[in-house]
Amino acid sequence: MKVLKNKLALLVDDEQGTMRGTAFFEYFISALIVANMVAIVLESYEEIMPVYGDWLMNFELFSIGVFTVEYLIRIWVSDERHPELPAWKARWKYMTSFLGLVDLLAILPFYLPYLLLMDLRILRSLRLFRLIRLLKLNRYFTSLRLIRNVILKTKNEIAVTVFLVFILLVLASTLMYNIEKQAQPEAFKNIGESMWWAVATLTTVGYGDVYPITGLGKLLSAFIALLGIGIVALPTGIISSAYMEEFRELKGKTTSCSCPHCGKEL
Amino acid sequence: MKVLKNKLALLVDDEQGTMRGTAFFEYFISALIVANMVAIVLESYEEIMPVYGDWLMNFELFSIGVFTVEYLIRIWVSDERHPELPAWKARWKYMTSFLGLVDLLAILPFYLPYLLLMDLRILRSLRLFRLIRLLKLNRYFTSLRLIRNVILKTKNEIAVTVFLVFILLVLASTLMYNIEKQAQPEAFKNIGESMWWAVATLTTVGYGDVYPITGLGKLLSAFIALLGIGIVALPTGIISSAYMEEFRELKGKTTSCSCPHCGKEL
Amino acid sequence: MKVLKNKLALLVDDEQGTMRGTAFFEYFISALIVANMVAIVLESYEEIMPVYGDWLMNFELFSIGVFTVEYLIRIWVSDERHPELPAWKARWKYMTSFLGLVDLLAILPFYLPYLLLMDLRILRSLRLFRLIRLLKLNRYFTSLRLIRNVILKTKNEIAVTVFLVFILLVLASTLMYNIEKQAQPEAFKNIGESMWWAVATLTTVGYGDVYPITGLGKLLSAFIALLGIGIVALPTGIISSAYMEEFRELKGKTTSCSCPHCGKEL
Amino acid sequence: MKVLKNKLALLVDDEQGTMRGTAFFEYFISALIVANMVAIVLESYEEIMPVYGDWLMNFELFSIGVFTVEYLIRIWVSDERHPELPAWKARWKYMTSFLGLVDLLAILPFYLPYLLLMDLRILRSLRLFRLIRLLKLNRYFTSLRLIRNVILKTKNEIAVTVFLVFILLVLASTLMYNIEKQAQPEAFKNIGESMWWAVATLTTVGYGDVYPITGLGKLLSAFIALLGIGIVALPTGIISSAYMEEFRELKGKTTSCSCPHCGKEL
Repeated sequence: MKVLKNKLALLVDDEQGTMRGTAFFEYFISALIVANMVAIVLESYEEIMPVYGDWLMNFELFSIGVFTVEYLIRIWVSDERHPELPAWKARWKYMTSFLGLVDLLAILPFYLPYLLLMDLRILRSLRLFRLIRLLKLNRYFTSLRLIRNVILKTKNEIAVTVFLVFILLVLASTLMYNIEKQAQPEAFKNIGESMWWAVATLTTVGYGDVYPITGLGKLLSAFIALLGIGIVALPTGIISSAYMEEFRELKGKTTSCSCPHCGKEL
Repeated sequence: MKVLKNKLALLVDDEQGTMRGTAFFEYFISALIVANMVAIVLESYEEIMPVYGDWLMNFELFSIGVFTVEYLIRIWVSDERHPELPAWKARWKYMTSFLGLVDLLAILPFYLPYLLLMDLRILRSLRLFRLIRLLKLNRYFTSLRLIRNVILKTKNEIAVTVFLVFILLVLASTLMYNIEKQAQPEAFKNIGESMWWAVATLTTVGYGDVYPITGLGKLLSAFIALLGIGIVALPTGIISSAYMEEFRELKGKTTSCSCPHCGKEL
Repeated sequence: MKVLKNKLALLVDDEQGTMRGTAFFEYFISALIVANMVAIVLESYEEIMPVYGDWLMNFELFSIGVFTVEYLIRIWVSDERHPELPAWKARWKYMTSFLGLVDLLAILPFYLPYLLLMDLRILRSLRLFRLIRLLKLNRYFTSLRLIRNVILKTKNEIAVTVFLVFILLVLASTLMYNIEKQAQPEAFKNIGESMWWAVATLTTVGYGDVYPITGLGKLLSAFIALLGIGIVALPTGIISSAYMEEFRELKGKTTSCSCPHCGKEL
Repeated sequence: MKVLKNKLALLVDDEQGTMRGTAFFEYFISALIVANMVAIVLESYEEIMPVYGDWLMNFELFSIGVFTVEYLIRIWVSDERHPELPAWKARWKYMTSFLGLVDLLAILPFYLPYLLLMDLRILRSLRLFRLIRLLKLNRYFTSLRLIRNVILKTKNEIAVTVFLVFILLVLASTLMYNIEKQAQPEAFKNIGESMWWAVATLTTVGYGDVYPITGLGKLLSAFIALLGIGIVALPTGIISSAYMEEFRELKGKTTSCSCPHCGKEL
């Protein structure tokens, strides 16, 4: 029993585990998560459900089974990773960690109707929560760390940029609403609808379902579209700088150097 | 009286004020400004006005009251911040500062019709000036400083880029007008209308209401759209570089040195 | 005569000239160039020509007069700037310089019909050459130098990027033509038309006049659109780096530095 | 014979060859490749085929001939470049190299029907493989090396970005499918169709054939479009940083040193 637990602890541990089984286990869970996504996409096809509906339901039951077993194992062996803590504390620590909650939320929507004896009709919308399973992949992406560091480092400036964009959207859509509401009472019915135009213009998406037709409206639209270029430049500049810093720190700057003029070591 | 004035001076002073009231006062004014924005958006909904119209009007009166009191207090206590100046000079200094003018313009549109005995019909368009209140938020965003520094540092290059974009827009729309006016006399009626196409293409918004249909027009459009990529690259590059400089200066790193042996620059 | 020539040489010289008249002369010519652009735009409005047509024609005659006199003066005084050369050589040097040719081309289209005794009908299309006058502004923008340096520095990489984009456009439009020609024989009539779609997608303009409707076509379109993001990233990265280098060189890196750990001067 | 082989080896060798013929040979092959592309484009024009069809077929035969001879020569002389290897090994090395395979694939589709005695109808779709000839240009672009280095250096981060984009697309389109399927059962028929909207929005292409019409859908669309700006910023920042590093390494600059007094890193 003790040996089995030890082996399982190594199996599900993605950081220390070096057994051959660990890599296999990781690939298996990753593949299952991706297959779950594919299943969600397939279920939305009307042509597919009558033919493969049963197959997809069985696959869902199989996935729930695997994820439930995985969750229970992770709870069970979590005291191995924190031998300094009492067993229940180590387990509680895992269960309330970010990845522990993701593991729970990935299976909970399936059990909830049975637990709460709710109407089965509401089960349908709960299916969407299966998307949370994608977050389980998080565990295996160490390469994400650099990008995460950069985003964390720049989160203040990004937040200010988002705030500036929001202010700009409110200003632009209020002005446009007042300019266009008489020419296009339907498309610019209120400032909320006007904001739909503002987002499409500032992000340069430009679906083409709403656009100004008056001269003044076109002038404002042109101005906002040109500002959109600057809006792209701001976060890009911020993120570029943060990347450079991160790169330089990773490289470890201890290369000793010699003067290019006299050749002496510094 | 003197004590009260002192307390109020600390209360409205967002830089030195450390009393607990200061933070509360700042949050209260910020929340009121944001609520004002929401009110402007809500007023534009036809469904909302008949039901909540009175409530929104009362909220506007309340806001005007708070902002007026705030403005008067700021005038009154401004001599506390500049003890070296005579009282009227310190007050005049505040009233003509950028934030002082914003504070005034945020409430003036409400009083103007009464002051000038104007027709009340014009009052409607004055309501738009309430958007100026958003600029009052400026006071509380110290994080904006980095972004403002970067923009100020690059303002010459940005201005040149804007000028280049403008020249490009005039050139492109004059050419396109001559190419397309016979195939689409309505969409490319004059160079002004043609410029609407030029902006939509250069900024890559592409609403799809105006686009060339002749072969030559499509060629020009493709060329302008590809140039649009370069137009995005220019300000992005400028802003990225300025950010890097700003970061490095903040960190207090010396960027380069001279060799201690021969004295030449490295 | 000699004195007048000297004064004129200083007047039109935008680099050495320090007289008060020089700045005035520069502003006058710049304003005239901008006014010429405005006139070209105005002439395209059908409503304006019958009313202000005579006025615009007179303005054109006035502009031609000023630019002709300016050109003749510049030829006359160009030997002052190169006293080491014989007079005719100095003049020929100016006339064949880039700005000298621009000065000539800005007025030539007006005189050409008289010189060649051509039909006046062709005069219409020659009017477009008046756009060349914008290039005269080039003389006064010293701030453009930084941007020009950056573009020159990166011209090899930009050229390679343009080449890659071109290859990508040919590949994408050939594939899309083969995929969509049966579903939309009108929109994807040949590879030329298909390239119109490719440009709109790769530059993310997306007018919406042409888009794939088959599943495979949408897949290719999605792939090209995502590549479009990379296409924006390449020149932006190139230009950012070049800017940084340029900035660093401008700053002169001779700031002596001390070790942040022991405080000693290096 | 030996002399001819030596000459041919120098002729086709784009790295060591310095004879006048080498440059000519390179330009000739490059021009032929570009002309092949133009021919593919021209063949798609219905107006052109009846008139110039024979000419284009002859040009194709001529191209195949040249490329076949080039391929055979390259096989024959490849032992000259690797004198240390036995002849057959040197030849096999070329034939299995990337450029060797490209050279083969550029001509193989023409011979395949004769080799396999297949139906000639399938020959048509094989013509598309002629696009592979473009890759032959690869040989002559040494300037591509910097861009290739940058892409190779950043391939991990780019891959993670692509993965993030993919996750985001699946999430966005699943949500949008559930939001919009009742309002627009045709446009958002299944998650696959919904993904078409997601790509168009996230890349800011915005064709305008599919867009949300419900309030919640517009909110999600606005959110995704704003995220699109961040999606552009990520690869741009990554590539910018890599460029800077590459530039600095090319320049041979030591990026940082250690203090000569206390030995600590600066």
